[in-house]
Amino acid sequence: MPFILPDLHIEMPGWVASFLARYPEPIDTPRKRMEVAIGLSLENVKRTNASGQPGGPFGAVVFDEDGRLVAPGVNRVMAENNSVLHAEIVALMLAQKKLGTFDLSFGGTRALALYTSTEPCAMCFGAVCWSGIGHLVCGAATRDAEAVGFDEGPRHPDWIREFEARGIRVTTGLCRKEATAVLRTYVADGGVIYNAGGPSNNRG
Amino acid sequence: MPFILPDLHIEMPGWVASFLARYPEPIDTPRKRMEVAIGLSLENVKRTNASGQPGGPFGAVVFDEDGRLVAPGVNRVMAENNSVLHAEIVALMLAQKKLGTFDLSFGGTRALALYTSTEPCAMCFGAVCWSGIGHLVCGAATRDAEAVGFDEGPRHPDWIREFEARGIRVTTGLCRKEATAVLRTYVADGGVIYNAGGPSNNRG
Repeated sequence: MPFILPDLHIEMPGWVASFLARYPEPIDTPRKRMEVAIGLSLENVKRTNASGQPGGPFGAVVFDEDGRLVAPGVNRVMAENNSVLHAEIVALMLAQKKLGTFDLSFGGTRALALYTSTEPCAMCFGAVCWSGIGHLVCGAATRDAEAVGFDEGPRHPDWIREFEARGIRVTTGLCRKEATAVLRTYVADGGVIYNAGGPSNNRG
Repeated sequence: MPFILPDLHIEMPGWVASFLARYPEPIDTPRKRMEVAIGLSLENVKRTNASGQPGGPFGAVVFDEDGRLVAPGVNRVMAENNSVLHAEIVALMLAQKKLGTFDLSFGGTRALALYTSTEPCAMCFGAVCWSGIGHLVCGAATRDAEAVGFDEGPRHPDWIREFEARGIRVTTGLCRKEATAVLRTYVADGGVIYNAGGPSNNRG
């Protein structure tokens, strides 16, 4: 019997496109760009699925150099039963799909930015390295995520220096308070800190 | 104008299902299971796309505890223009899709194995941590990949210990020679060591 391969069709929730339509482009300041990423993280928590389960409290957006939105991402781990689909991964995959390249730096000639509502976990750290992103901008810090029970995983201890060594600029703590508030809201409302192997070992 | 979201439909190349049909299940030894992962890596190199470009020389397979094949993965970075689609990521996503869960440990009750033709890069290292995989089995070593020009990225320096601290068993160097031979073949045949930002900074 031939092996039947499952099919991977990854869809963004329907509300994302209308949410983004609220933001006329280009979006001219870093703070306003981060507000889009944080807005996505909050909206992802508010929108529950058929079983009343909210999405993980994480959002990310790829912007071009002029502040034009290339692609959004929200955490889709529980929604798609796929532990890879953190917000950053979704945004990077959609941006590459949209621009038709696996290298968002276009051979080192461009510097697109990834705005993420929380500093990247161990996996997303590696994914950003391979993506061709030129500038990573983070909202909530790792310790903010950990303070409410999330786990960023065994990321390289010198992750910011490692990014910079690869020519990826890093900005941390932009709208940190607002981003952290979303994490807290999610947990206070009883959102699951899901996991592989138990209820307390993942970040999403 | 509403933002148009691109669609992500990730397909495995057609040859994978017939390739796997050669291996009657269950596959009863670790060595034979690794041969499937290495076989996929070699076949991925041999099968060129419409532009004559081979796939990256990396294969991975998720097996259940009895040696039944759950899902295969091959590097699809260039084929799908998606820098996330390393062989391990593809195998994990397909396995989770097939089993309908983002936690392949099923709450810590199962220990599925991921066989990979080369030790995981920085991104796949993190992805394995979140996947619920219980046992990681590697063929070629990081230094074998680096010796022919690949880059595993800024993976945590103590990656094996970090896996073990999370209850993930690690076996290295299984069929290392055979796995390394595929990496060498790919490079000797002029396969691209593609990259974000230049031709020499990625692993696939």
